[in-house]
Amino acid sequence: MLKYLRREIRDLEAYEVKERDYVVKLDANEGVDWLDGLNRYPVDRSDALRDKLARQLGKTPGELVFGNGSSELIELVFKAYLEAGETVVSFSPTFSMYRIFTLIHKGRYLEMPLKDMVSLDVEAFIAFANENRAKVVLISNPNNPTGTILSPEAIEKIVREVDAMVVIDEAYIEFSDQPLTDKTRDYPNAVVLRTFSKAYGLAGIRLGYMIAHEEVIGYINRVRSPYNLNVLTQGVGLKALESVAIARENIQMIKEERERMAKVLRDKGFDPLPSQANFLFFQAKKGLYRYLADQGVLIRGFGGDLEGYYRLTIGTPKENDIVINAIEEAQNERSQDR
Amino acid sequence: MLKYLRREIRDLEAYEVKERDYVVKLDANEGVDWLDGLNRYPVDRSDALRDKLARQLGKTPGELVFGNGSSELIELVFKAYLEAGETVVSFSPTFSMYRIFTLIHKGRYLEMPLKDMVSLDVEAFIAFANENRAKVVLISNPNNPTGTILSPEAIEKIVREVDAMVVIDEAYIEFSDQPLTDKTRDYPNAVVLRTFSKAYGLAGIRLGYMIAHEEVIGYINRVRSPYNLNVLTQGVGLKALESVAIARENIQMIKEERERMAKVLRDKGFDPLPSQANFLFFQAKKGLYRYLADQGVLIRGFGGDLEGYYRLTIGTPKENDIVINAIEEAQNERSQDR
Repeated sequence: MLKYLRREIRDLEAYEVKERDYVVKLDANEGVDWLDGLNRYPVDRSDALRDKLARQLGKTPGELVFGNGSSELIELVFKAYLEAGETVVSFSPTFSMYRIFTLIHKGRYLEMPLKDMVSLDVEAFIAFANENRAKVVLISNPNNPTGTILSPEAIEKIVREVDAMVVIDEAYIEFSDQPLTDKTRDYPNAVVLRTFSKAYGLAGIRLGYMIAHEEVIGYINRVRSPYNLNVLTQGVGLKALESVAIARENIQMIKEERERMAKVLRDKGFDPLPSQANFLFFQAKKGLYRYLADQGVLIRGFGGDLEGYYRLTIGTPKENDIVINAIEEAQNERSQDR
Repeated sequence: MLKYLRREIRDLEAYEVKERDYVVKLDANEGVDWLDGLNRYPVDRSDALRDKLARQLGKTPGELVFGNGSSELIELVFKAYLEAGETVVSFSPTFSMYRIFTLIHKGRYLEMPLKDMVSLDVEAFIAFANENRAKVVLISNPNNPTGTILSPEAIEKIVREVDAMVVIDEAYIEFSDQPLTDKTRDYPNAVVLRTFSKAYGLAGIRLGYMIAHEEVIGYINRVRSPYNLNVLTQGVGLKALESVAIARENIQMIKEERERMAKVLRDKGFDPLPSQANFLFFQAKKGLYRYLADQGVLIRGFGGDLEGYYRLTIGTPKENDIVINAIEEAQNERSQDR
């Protein structure tokens, strides 16, 4: 949306690399090939990967852009849309990097607390964004670290009623019961981010993608660094798109394991929030966390406002069994101490 | 240098990932392993790669940071040091992305022209930077696209006398006759950037590194995204460091070929600038460029102020022979046209 675009970006042209046939290519100061043709710069816009993903999603390639994880994509939105001093709004608790990225890109970051860490008062949130003249609204959905999710209707209402770009960070959406749809064609102020790090099991390659209106993607490409995505990540990403059946199986397994683990935790006296992601969020005594860590069972603990809260990623059945045993041991140990 | 650091970054802590031994790792919402352990996030600070490079350079790991090409590293300097509206200074012509990155990071970009596109009046440049209250000075050395180089003494004088962070972009330094040294320990306002894209022949993996004072690297890590460098690039980078002999041979070959090609161009009536990089910069008629392109010989042409100038990357002897033949054909064709 031109309306929200930074003034300095309006006159900028997107870097365009024309892929041309050649006999010798001596136009890009590339070095000598000694390792699998890696001397060549990657295809600038990840064409093969982009075309394949576009077909799978029912999108045009012009509605997609790739980045080194969702991190780069959030930063691209800020680079295109956020003037110095302008406001970014989200709710809390949420992904802690939103605040850092805002600060790095010279914005002001404001959060509205969720009720009981779970539910968002959508009307109040819209008012909060508009009263603070938010330029960008960030929504982690399902939300990290709580695992809770907003309905498509709530998201659409926010997108329609705030006077801002709305980034819907769907890093965990494949683990939810919602369909993978988006309304970016209807709403040019909506930007959807997804990642290969979670459901696709490929955090090591740092690959995320953005879905937005073609006009928005055109602006994003103006602030994207040329050749941003290396050729190795593009290659593995393509392999992943050819292996969707594997991802689908793993997602199904994680969803089943999530319900099993939620029940186990409840049986053991914890109260995990209802999760639509690949993790569970719950309160516990610090002793549990320490005991687990001593056994080599790493879960995520938080500080600050979230002191005493823990986030447990759902693993394979075998990994989860180890967690369950360790929790039981921790509880027995404690009861023996008494 | 704290003096130049952005105020907002002073209270920020660098993201630190503690690498711990584990039995099950369920703290980072990683997915299920189905492809070579790529479900794990990469090591955040590229430890193995960093340790090996540090040993080769005689640096401590704390003096190095890696990025997705020099592009990300330039942006990291701006993120840490450049407030909105502050000035970035370079000379012209130089790498065109400096202007774009400055604009994206909300700075003001000023260039001082080189004399005859070759020589920099160092005194005047220092005055230019200081009069314009430059916060960051960018020096491409050897300079892209001219191929010319500043002496270590000139660089040191600039670093000493400007009141700014000085980024010395040494993307092509390995092709020069200067030793690979830097004075970042003596001058905490000096930042050196190098890349695996040119002399190492690995543009496809997008790998660059920064050398700076440990204090500066500490600040840079505050604005670097967690896990910025994917695991595949880290792996190939390590392989490259184990294959320095290959790189050294290729560099020697390119340097010899550069002298051969410079002589050929001069013999054919062109006047390439003396180059310390892996390319030659010269003026030509547009007809030559078009003829070469029609033959599949791609060289780089420029627009704007550099209309009529061309940059030819030095290739292998075989590639260069094809270029020579194509230039001869172009010249014969033109003489027959008469």
